[in-house]
Amino acid sequence: MDKLYIIKIGGNIIDDAERLAGLLRTFAAIKGNRILVHGGGKLASSMAAELQVPQQIVEGRRITDAPTLKIITMVYAGLINKNIVAALQEHQCNAAGFCGADGNAITAHRRISGNFGFVGDIDRVNTDFFRSLLQQDIVPVIAPLTHDGKGQLLNTNADTIASAIATALSPFYNTSLVYTFEKPGVLLQSYDESAVISELRPANYAAMKKSGAIFAGMIPKLDNAFAAVSAGVSKVIIGKAEDLPLLLTGEKGTTILHD
Amino acid sequence: MDKLYIIKIGGNIIDDAERLAGLLRTFAAIKGNRILVHGGGKLASSMAAELQVPQQIVEGRRITDAPTLKIITMVYAGLINKNIVAALQEHQCNAAGFCGADGNAITAHRRISGNFGFVGDIDRVNTDFFRSLLQQDIVPVIAPLTHDGKGQLLNTNADTIASAIATALSPFYNTSLVYTFEKPGVLLQSYDESAVISELRPANYAAMKKSGAIFAGMIPKLDNAFAAVSAGVSKVIIGKAEDLPLLLTGEKGTTILHD
Repeated sequence: MDKLYIIKIGGNIIDDAERLAGLLRTFAAIKGNRILVHGGGKLASSMAAELQVPQQIVEGRRITDAPTLKIITMVYAGLINKNIVAALQEHQCNAAGFCGADGNAITAHRRISGNFGFVGDIDRVNTDFFRSLLQQDIVPVIAPLTHDGKGQLLNTNADTIASAIATALSPFYNTSLVYTFEKPGVLLQSYDESAVISELRPANYAAMKKSGAIFAGMIPKLDNAFAAVSAGVSKVIIGKAEDLPLLLTGEKGTTILHD
Repeated sequence: MDKLYIIKIGGNIIDDAERLAGLLRTFAAIKGNRILVHGGGKLASSMAAELQVPQQIVEGRRITDAPTLKIITMVYAGLINKNIVAALQEHQCNAAGFCGADGNAITAHRRISGNFGFVGDIDRVNTDFFRSLLQQDIVPVIAPLTHDGKGQLLNTNADTIASAIATALSPFYNTSLVYTFEKPGVLLQSYDESAVISELRPANYAAMKKSGAIFAGMIPKLDNAFAAVSAGVSKVIIGKAEDLPLLLTGEKGTTILHD
């Protein structure tokens, strides 16, 4: 099977033009099939502040009311997505930007519980759409919005989108899912940035979780990573965006594998 | 050759949710190859006002400075484009939204003369990209932005984009270019809305232009239409968005043909 990399970027790097430019240059130079999924950074919040749209936070989560969805659509699917695409094109990477409504790429339903507003939980990834793009050497760049097929756009977590795409495409490709963040990988409880766990498998993960050796904040991300691996994704790699080429070769970051 | 319709919508209909919804329902029901090109309406101006970005108008034209380009990217390629796509998907029309940077669809260079800011004049339409989408029964929905291939997005007139796509695709399809606007077609100088000229060819257009029979405000649009027809587009149809199905059959609007 051909290799495929699904690379999720987000957080601070989206807000830092210079770091983002460097990352996109590196991403463009990767060979072969790849999909970029981006988050929104702080731009949506600052746009909401500028437009005086109050942001409601419940249990640490932003409520996506109608004015907030409008801002997210503008900032994620417009501003961030198209500037990433234009930058990749500059580096001869034939990128095309989408949200989940485009080509019916990702269908979701509005979350019923919790009253989070226009938030979508994914039902289906249109593998034909992604495969056709990849076969044409087009690099999909995905903004974190889905749709319900009834005309409604929905805000959907970028990590979840990346994982859903990776899982759906794993029957067709040898798929690696890469989560970039601010740390060099999964750290031991020590908080010491040099103490990166280079490889995790279900057995040692369970043991380390039990003993408290792993930094607690990473547990939800890791549980998701193991869920992806057990659903067919070949491996999940977690590490710093700046280390991207070395993450793919396994020289840096944490690689999460099946038993 | 297969038929292809390039349909440009813009102006007031973009700002009127109910009219737009009706048009998209009609557009979704059209069979066969089609591409939708949309303008921006007044949403970009109202967003600029909300964000307190002053709009400079020179000789009746808006200057696209960097803050204005940012707004246009958000409003055109994000808000308007994705809501159109989601609405078409609701009506089982497999739309995918793009700007000219996506898939390197439309390359342009920054206009040198006139100091209009980040405004692009089109150099090339990537016909492979559009043909591949159409072959997959995907309906491209195009926001009026291009790119220069060096990382810069550029604001480009939606009428010009529609005409450039139609011209570029005319060697591959029997292409009709449809411009929808607020009038039922090209009117005689009388301003009487019932006095629609149903068909225009170069010879009678020249005569009517000379005699002053045609409403002067239509002359630039018509000159562009005739340029498209002489560059290979089968016909250009001008009329009211609400008349869309009857425009395509020639029962309403003005059809512009080659001699």
